[in-house]
Amino acid sequence: MTTTLPTTDPRSGTTRDTGIEPTSEAQVGELTAAAAEAFSALRAHPRSWRAGLLRALADGLEARRADLLSTAEAETGLVASPRLDGELTRSAYQLRLFAEAVEEGGYLEATIDSAGDTPMGPGPDVRRMLIPIGPVAVFGSSNFPFAFSVAGGDTASALAAGNPVIVKAHGSHPLTSRASFEALRDAADAYGAPSGTIGIVYSQSAGATLVADPRVAAVGFTGSLSTGRILLDIIEKRDRPIPFYGELSSLNPLIVTPGAAAARGAEIAEGLYASFTASTGQLCTKPGIAFLPRGAAADEVVSALVERAREAGAQPLLNSRIHEAFDDIAGRLVSDGHARSLVASRAGEDGFTVTPGVLEIDARDMTAAVTEEAFGPLIVLARYSDLDEVRTGLTAVPDSLTATLHAEDSELDDIAPLATELQDLVGRLVFNGYPTGVRVSWGQHHGGPWPATNSAHTSVGITAIRRFLRPIAWQSAPEALLPKELRDGFDAIPRRVDGVLRLAGSTR
Amino acid sequence: MTTTLPTTDPRSGTTRDTGIEPTSEAQVGELTAAAAEAFSALRAHPRSWRAGLLRALADGLEARRADLLSTAEAETGLVASPRLDGELTRSAYQLRLFAEAVEEGGYLEATIDSAGDTPMGPGPDVRRMLIPIGPVAVFGSSNFPFAFSVAGGDTASALAAGNPVIVKAHGSHPLTSRASFEALRDAADAYGAPSGTIGIVYSQSAGATLVADPRVAAVGFTGSLSTGRILLDIIEKRDRPIPFYGELSSLNPLIVTPGAAAARGAEIAEGLYASFTASTGQLCTKPGIAFLPRGAAADEVVSALVERAREAGAQPLLNSRIHEAFDDIAGRLVSDGHARSLVASRAGEDGFTVTPGVLEIDARDMTAAVTEEAFGPLIVLARYSDLDEVRTGLTAVPDSLTATLHAEDSELDDIAPLATELQDLVGRLVFNGYPTGVRVSWGQHHGGPWPATNSAHTSVGITAIRRFLRPIAWQSAPEALLPKELRDGFDAIPRRVDGVLRLAGSTR
Repeated sequence: MTTTLPTTDPRSGTTRDTGIEPTSEAQVGELTAAAAEAFSALRAHPRSWRAGLLRALADGLEARRADLLSTAEAETGLVASPRLDGELTRSAYQLRLFAEAVEEGGYLEATIDSAGDTPMGPGPDVRRMLIPIGPVAVFGSSNFPFAFSVAGGDTASALAAGNPVIVKAHGSHPLTSRASFEALRDAADAYGAPSGTIGIVYSQSAGATLVADPRVAAVGFTGSLSTGRILLDIIEKRDRPIPFYGELSSLNPLIVTPGAAAARGAEIAEGLYASFTASTGQLCTKPGIAFLPRGAAADEVVSALVERAREAGAQPLLNSRIHEAFDDIAGRLVSDGHARSLVASRAGEDGFTVTPGVLEIDARDMTAAVTEEAFGPLIVLARYSDLDEVRTGLTAVPDSLTATLHAEDSELDDIAPLATELQDLVGRLVFNGYPTGVRVSWGQHHGGPWPATNSAHTSVGITAIRRFLRPIAWQSAPEALLPKELRDGFDAIPRRVDGVLRLAGSTR
Repeated sequence: MTTTLPTTDPRSGTTRDTGIEPTSEAQVGELTAAAAEAFSALRAHPRSWRAGLLRALADGLEARRADLLSTAEAETGLVASPRLDGELTRSAYQLRLFAEAVEEGGYLEATIDSAGDTPMGPGPDVRRMLIPIGPVAVFGSSNFPFAFSVAGGDTASALAAGNPVIVKAHGSHPLTSRASFEALRDAADAYGAPSGTIGIVYSQSAGATLVADPRVAAVGFTGSLSTGRILLDIIEKRDRPIPFYGELSSLNPLIVTPGAAAARGAEIAEGLYASFTASTGQLCTKPGIAFLPRGAAADEVVSALVERAREAGAQPLLNSRIHEAFDDIAGRLVSDGHARSLVASRAGEDGFTVTPGVLEIDARDMTAAVTEEAFGPLIVLARYSDLDEVRTGLTAVPDSLTATLHAEDSELDDIAPLATELQDLVGRLVFNGYPTGVRVSWGQHHGGPWPATNSAHTSVGITAIRRFLRPIAWQSAPEALLPKELRDGFDAIPRRVDGVLRLAGSTR
């Protein structure tokens, strides 16, 4: 008799059985074989068909909104409205935005070099385009059961690129994973997509089998550094390595200048509090460390944060593992990191609930011991006398997804060098705002140097699609064997012809 | 007393001392520190300055053409003209072409999403652009002492992206490496580039130290799978992994249809012979295996190849290691691979010289034992009865940089499915031509699935620059802190604004 997967309500800590059986090794093989078959079938469809598929998936998700929200609420402890509701809207929006990009076609990077004389002698006709990479394995995160899980950005970008997807259901929300998968699969079936277009596996062991499967061409992952390393180890043992797109860990330093603290301290305290406690502090872009100047203005920011944290009720963390780790790390930051505890985080009475914590340290005393990511509602306030102390403190901060600067216009000359230096440490620089709440758009970049991500790629925004494509060049190809987008006279997408970029519809 | 590096003339096998000392660990550290300093300085220069630098480097190389060619001829055994002369021209051309791309600016992928209402609520202003990744370590290949070595494509693309470069001198051509470096460095100095813009290290141990150095942000490598793996192992042990762009190994299958064999067998024999013996068969795009149909027409192709190979004189391989490996692998293909030796490759009397070899096998009998890459003038002819036998044979062929199809127009319907399948195995599909001779252009792609390369990136052509860039997004940034290319009203480069691609100079 196979044990089925459990699910736990983090608000109460109550565990029950889902009836979902772990996927066997043989079943994983069947799924990847079906995905490989679907890959061939998908390639025969034009981009317009694929854009339609993405929109059908968005509609399919929204048609089951009520059921998905209640399932996710009970498994994640995140509130159905506005939090999970907004997240599901984001998943659907993401699919529809990617459909636009697929139709627009610029992402193909279509390039034509005509045959002819060059300074190197006669050159052959060379035409380049991005093509889908093959079946993609997607491992979602616990903290975004929709936008970074089964129906999330990795799934959307892999499908937009033209690949089949096999998701690994998250152990922390198996029922939400299954319900999301069924919504997507039913919509794909109704649209007429090949049956292997979307698959799902359950259990860590099935996930490991999936990553090792030779038919899998890339892995998208959002989660912890430790699990990321396990998957990387599996990939390194494959005969043929494949790209691993991991979004792993981030501390997201935020810096408040003296001018900003003086001009709008109360506003910053409010915004910062909301940002580090949103979703019980379980956002990859949570500001985990804030540099505040010494002095009365910033003291008031600290007081306001302390007051809010003291008054806050307990909110649930996602699961027992995160709950234990949070407690553990919060303690270590004080004992090993020598941070002063201004408000100690307390465990609530029910389930995995906790209250927010606020720590303080001198920026110049910062060490790696105080910059461990505490996934939950905790912030370290680093007090500084001048920007050189901020620089000293930053050397102990691991590279991150984001850095944030709060500064007044009159201070821009002073902070310009620091803003340039911050570019080397992060993937997104936020000014006078908060890093949480990542806009899904054409220009977004959600990535950063290791350990924020392991590559120069984004997991949010249109260019996330690029991860699941690879370039190929055709040399002197007969017109009939070229993709439509590379044929002479095709003008429905932007193309670069003989080095010159042309817009769609260009008659040149 | 330090032993200095030796150099060997592969035509005679004579070894002499270069007087070049291996770079010490401390010296490597000084070079990477200088590169890190140069990185900051380089970022302060506009793109037009960098384009000028690339052109100055091209001029600097060409000014020393005679010296570079004679040095390289004695170290590689490749003939000065046209082979090395053309290669130096290519290195210079590459730098100048990359200068054009830097000026054009499309490679920056500048993208602006204006602040405003979105279906997800109000969105902040987000602007994305690619920025240089940091100091790049470049390991060149033995077979292209100019175009894929110190002055080669990796150096050109890393510099074009805005990064300093530290090259590792190739042990097989240390004097050419030094002379190339000095030509580049002197030109860079005269242009006014920061002193750490280009550096060089000598010895394998110094190369290993370089890859492990925390200041190095990426590695470009062209060479053997075994050396590539050694560098990857070093990278995996770093605290912070960095991208490794390796171009490693390739068999480059070529398929001749019955129609092509009948219509132009003699021409194909001539082209194929030239392609697999060019540069003594030491090209990464050498067709190592050719599928020929059974029957009289292809028998004549085989006879013509055999005749040419029998009559050929011995040509030098690049070094003793390649010489030994070639002899070893050629023998194994017959003994373990059960290929029939039609013309056995013979060692010449002098140095590392060899004559070409031709083997034959039935396509349906092909195994991994016969598809090992023999770096040198050897080709395996795989005879087939129908395209399914070609497919069977191809399953034993490792994924490659290129695949080539020779077919008549009347056969296109028949071979179309095979042409599609080949896309999954290679990075470039060549029709009715030969894979050797890679055009340096906007649309070129020189890469392929593992083990051809380890990523979806190219090492030839304009998009090679992309390897040494990373994206970053600015959110709600004050105009003064944005790069010029992302400011309002800037129209000197193509940009995507609110999802719409705009050409340079567009007034929209």
